Amino acid sequence: MLEFFQLKTIEEVLALLERFPVLAAETIPLQQAWNRVLAADVAAPADVPEFDRACMDGYAVRARDTFGASPGSPAWLSISGEVAMGAVATQPLAPGQAQRLATGGMLPPGADAVVMVEYTQELGDQTIEVYRSVAPLENVVQRGEDVTAGTVLLRAGARLRPQDIGLLAALGVAAVPVRRRPRVAVLATGDEIIPITAAPQPGQMRDANSYALAAQIMACGGDPQPLGIIPDRLEAWQAAIETALAASDLILLSGGSSVGTRDLAVAAIRSFPDAEILVHGVAISPGKPTILATIGGKPLFGLPGHPVSALVIMDILVQPLLAQLLGLAGPEPPWRRRVTARLSRNLASAAGREEFVRVRLRLADDGLWADPILGKSGLISTMVKADGLVRIPLHTEGLEQGERVEVRLFR
Amino acid sequence: MLEFFQLKTIEEVLALLERFPVLAAETIPLQQAWNRVLAADVAAPADVPEFDRACMDGYAVRARDTFGASPGSPAWLSISGEVAMGAVATQPLAPGQAQRLATGGMLPPGADAVVMVEYTQELGDQTIEVYRSVAPLENVVQRGEDVTAGTVLLRAGARLRPQDIGLLAALGVAAVPVRRRPRVAVLATGDEIIPITAAPQPGQMRDANSYALAAQIMACGGDPQPLGIIPDRLEAWQAAIETALAASDLILLSGGSSVGTRDLAVAAIRSFPDAEILVHGVAISPGKPTILATIGGKPLFGLPGHPVSALVIMDILVQPLLAQLLGLAGPEPPWRRRVTARLSRNLASAAGREEFVRVRLRLADDGLWADPILGKSGLISTMVKADGLVRIPLHTEGLEQGERVEVRLFR
Repeated sequence: MLEFFQLKTIEEVLALLERFPVLAAETIPLQQAWNRVLAADVAAPADVPEFDRACMDGYAVRARDTFGASPGSPAWLSISGEVAMGAVATQPLAPGQAQRLATGGMLPPGADAVVMVEYTQELGDQTIEVYRSVAPLENVVQRGEDVTAGTVLLRAGARLRPQDIGLLAALGVAAVPVRRRPRVAVLATGDEIIPITAAPQPGQMRDANSYALAAQIMACGGDPQPLGIIPDRLEAWQAAIETALAASDLILLSGGSSVGTRDLAVAAIRSFPDAEILVHGVAISPGKPTILATIGGKPLFGLPGHPVSALVIMDILVQPLLAQLLGLAGPEPPWRRRVTARLSRNLASAAGREEFVRVRLRLADDGLWADPILGKSGLISTMVKADGLVRIPLHTEGLEQGERVEVRLFR
Repeated sequence: MLEFFQLKTIEEVLALLERFPVLAAETIPLQQAWNRVLAADVAAPADVPEFDRACMDGYAVRARDTFGASPGSPAWLSISGEVAMGAVATQPLAPGQAQRLATGGMLPPGADAVVMVEYTQELGDQTIEVYRSVAPLENVVQRGEDVTAGTVLLRAGARLRPQDIGLLAALGVAAVPVRRRPRVAVLATGDEIIPITAAPQPGQMRDANSYALAAQIMACGGDPQPLGIIPDRLEAWQAAIETALAASDLILLSGGSSVGTRDLAVAAIRSFPDAEILVHGVAISPGKPTILATIGGKPLFGLPGHPVSALVIMDILVQPLLAQLLGLAGPEPPWRRRVTARLSRNLASAAGREEFVRVRLRLADDGLWADPILGKSGLISTMVKADGLVRIPLHTEGLEQGERVEVRLFR
């Protein structure tokens, strides 16, 4: 059976990814929630802070008692007590009085401002001089000023950063609903592929991709499940895909898309009754012979066996699929992992494909330069030397030396 | 005892961090090495590839047999066999012959180039037409072309990315020497601090910092060890520091540096015979009351209790210390986690301190803008709204609306 597949553009493939549903939520302890993706909006259950408190070390005062105070003409206040940390300030502050308190301390009734300790001097135990006037509410965080009860603070789809974790802790959220980490099965295919601990005979290659892909899956917040090396026989591929379907959310067939094996890949995928091949060939270089299929609603990518092509496809196509499965809100903002640099030499482009060129960044006196890395796309060492990728758009003849280009930085 | 400490600049503090030694190395399986820091140079034990191989699907040929070939005047070659994947190509290629092979396949003796399958047509089983000439070595990766035996490929101090893991796998490096992850003890101090699951009474605050700091430690490649909430008593602090010294590489005292407790912190640190306080106050805002000490050669940071100040100090000072302990090669390059944007309003600066202002990034038609986030520095919600920090240098009066500023992006 001869089949013709039309190359799809990157945008067409990205649009197809939207069909795959977001993974289920799970609730985990806050300690483990860093870098996970929130599965529900979080609203503040109460005001933060729950009381008016000092945000500087110093003295609680009535602001009007300090009006006009200066080093030449200080205000004198009598010390009527001290607010201990963690204690309820019960003793009211009368006019002309001050009470010591530290950052975070509760304002006593009657006080409406805090004078920083730097602008005071104690005269014995009973009196302070104040050298600067404070306005009402100065150096005070009012009840609800940080967070008002009921406000939605973090939205579903946010990746939790350290400060987000801190806010959740401040709100008493000890268990957080997050998306399950996508389990990603990695099947290395090819009769020439051997375990990395084996010594290759001529014609054989070590299984670099299982390791590189697993690392990239981790970098994207997924949980890699390497299923080993699968020999190039239909039954072996069918069995491996069946195992992977049962235990994972996404299947990566490394080396399942080149001329030698793509018929095998197509046959193995088609042997499942609910399979559909969505993409067979993408207008991208490197990485053209990429397959995207769905089996029983689960996505499967057939990746080129070339490590460089596989890593580029991971970055350009598989990472967005993982973001889709995680329910990440929106695409990565354009200022993340992107820099602008000038290209240090001309780059020609193959017609009809988007090209991704490996570049190394170099900071010179006249700014940041992107040096294209020469070498065939099969050489993994070129990826190791590179800091990122420059995209040559589809309908251009290439890029010129000195042109400003956007560099997608590697993780 | 009254003591005077001179505020140190950020650069002075960073210079002091260099005294702390790099942690020991450990050898771990390659599967776990992603994002770890290499502890030794890795040289290639052998050539990669170890044989001349095809980097395209097609036919192994003698290049000269294709010279002058075109669609109008194809070259005819006889098919003398096929090189199976993973097999040694033993059958020599005679002039006028071609052998089928796939990407990665070994070149047979006598062949010096590969014609891509796209430029050929099979005429029966025995003959192909070739429509394009190939140069010698075209579509061939020569032995050692990716990596030559003995070349140093990855240097000690490199953080391992997916492609680096792939290269190590290709070289058969199944166990990797990396730096131990820094164990970082986090001690939350303060009588007003309560566990996050408790309901705060007036005057009390939940322990947000232990969680936020732990997340930031993870983001920097460290291993957080939260040691709980320590009451404000000298013996309690001494005991907690002693526990931390035994089990960790770096101690963070959250809330141990403000007016109310800094004497306690200094006393607790000084009670250890081999302690030295290196820094007591940094010319930075927020985060001025920061302590850096060494006890028996181990570093200790006293961090402000304000979550925002603590997180800023983590980013500006503690992260470089973790990089030092990890032996990370060089500072983070200036194109990492940095973007240039225009400031949307004037920012005044306090004299004598470097200020770090929280900003949110906004992409408009006329480019990227940094919107300063208003609100007192004690409000953790301001960090949650922000994408990064803008630095106002020490000896400036501030920054002007429309000025181009560098934004340090949060992780």
